[in-house]
Amino acid sequence: SAVKVAILTVSDTVASGAGPDRSGPKAVEYISSLSEKLGGARVVATAVVSDTVHEIQEVLKKWSDQDQVHLILTSGGTGFAPRDITPEATIPLLHKQAPGLVQVMLNKSLQITQTAMLSRAAAGIRGSTLIINMPGNPNAVIECLDALLPALPHALKQLRGDKREKHPRHV
Amino acid sequence: SAVKVAILTVSDTVASGAGPDRSGPKAVEYISSLSEKLGGARVVATAVVSDTVHEIQEVLKKWSDQDQVHLILTSGGTGFAPRDITPEATIPLLHKQAPGLVQVMLNKSLQITQTAMLSRAAAGIRGSTLIINMPGNPNAVIECLDALLPALPHALKQLRGDKREKHPRHV
Amino acid sequence: SAVKVAILTVSDTVASGAGPDRSGPKAVEYISSLSEKLGGARVVATAVVSDTVHEIQEVLKKWSDQDQVHLILTSGGTGFAPRDITPEATIPLLHKQAPGLVQVMLNKSLQITQTAMLSRAAAGIRGSTLIINMPGNPNAVIECLDALLPALPHALKQLRGDKREKHPRHV
Ligand code: NA
Repeated sequence: SAVKVAILTVSDTVASGAGPDRSGPKAVEYISSLSEKLGGARVVATAVVSDTVHEIQEVLKKWSDQDQVHLILTSGGTGFAPRDITPEATIPLLHKQAPGLVQVMLNKSLQITQTAMLSRAAAGIRGSTLIINMPGNPNAVIECLDALLPALPHALKQLRGDKREKHPRHV
Repeated sequence: SAVKVAILTVSDTVASGAGPDRSGPKAVEYISSLSEKLGGARVVATAVVSDTVHEIQEVLKKWSDQDQVHLILTSGGTGFAPRDITPEATIPLLHKQAPGLVQVMLNKSLQITQTAMLSRAAAGIRGSTLIINMPGNPNAVIECLDALLPALPHALKQLRGDKREKHPRHV
Repeated sequence: SAVKVAILTVSDTVASGAGPDRSGPKAVEYISSLSEKLGGARVVATAVVSDTVHEIQEVLKKWSDQDQVHLILTSGGTGFAPRDITPEATIPLLHKQAPGLVQVMLNKSLQITQTAMLSRAAAGIRGSTLIINMPGNPNAVIECLDALLPALPHALKQLRGDKREKHPRHV
């Protein structure tokens, strides 16, 4: 009954081999180090795709619908550059949006840099999989995960239908 | 010319008779106690439905389209549990979204508990009816209403076409 | 390679000649005074339309698709009054939403007045044009632009495909 986590790096640069994946490994390391706190979290898959709607969606659908991953983190493609389309690939796949997670990540990031307002990240639920868009910057990934951490274990228990978690305060 | 308010409790537990409705009565009491401040608010209807899109939508449509209620508050079904679908029932019925109300409720709730980030509540306008999703927790309902109170009277006057309220600052 | 800016005042009152345009000229003045900071910003067009979806959309489409304006600011029509439909006219034209800009403008406005929560402004990207809904109040326009200013130059460079701006922190 471990919590299955998958990490998707979205980057033309990394996908083409022109640069290293810095954010993906950071996220893997973070999840692994907090495994117990997250209910026994384990990274079961990682992938790198280019900034392409079709490629992103194929991976998100496989991980949620077939592999029944509990938590998918994407990294990259959330800005204003012409190729940034991670939210546009993610949003149509969500059955339920989770705007509170977005607001909390943004509030945290804004404490660090004002350019965080350019994040267009989305978050929400597909089936019983929580999908969260993260920034491409590896430090920002950690800061966003830190911001979500106080509620993430509850989110994952609720998603799996744990009745004891059905009515936490304020949700 | 009283402000007509209706309160919808969304809960499988309450609808099935397996537990008492705690949030609905709290909201009724709150609205009644602030009646004057809200322009003569009066709770004209309450209902309880299960966590079912069709049931929620039937009530929301009747209260807004037929009964011309000015303000509908829903309570419950905004979290991450598989049955939580109040926002998904509400959003397609809105003609105009009101994300500022959502942001303010969330900011207030986050001051009380970090799990508030799991709220997926929506708010907006259908015809001349303001519909606001509230958490299921009765204390959280009050805290959210407190957060909205400074602007709610203006919102209700604007909605009813009161010209003097047409250009409040920042809107 | 100047940054082309266009300003759209949305107001039945102004469009009908029943009142002066106060917010449009304020926005023009603001952009002109910050021209250098914004990468050589220049107001290339202004217009006034009534609170009508069709009129708003015609101007937004012409300025973004034909005139390749880099930044469009609208002012007015974002509240709860029956005729307020600027966000509903804007959102369907956006290829990418920019909720972070909305959140930051709202946070700033809420510091000034609680009625700011009634703002339903949207922001996002159409092609390579950034479109931002602003309040109708001229002082509020300035306050919102002030809130966006720390990130606006990056946004405009990213949008134009400037590679050096591709990975600012947290986006
Ligand atoms: Na906020």
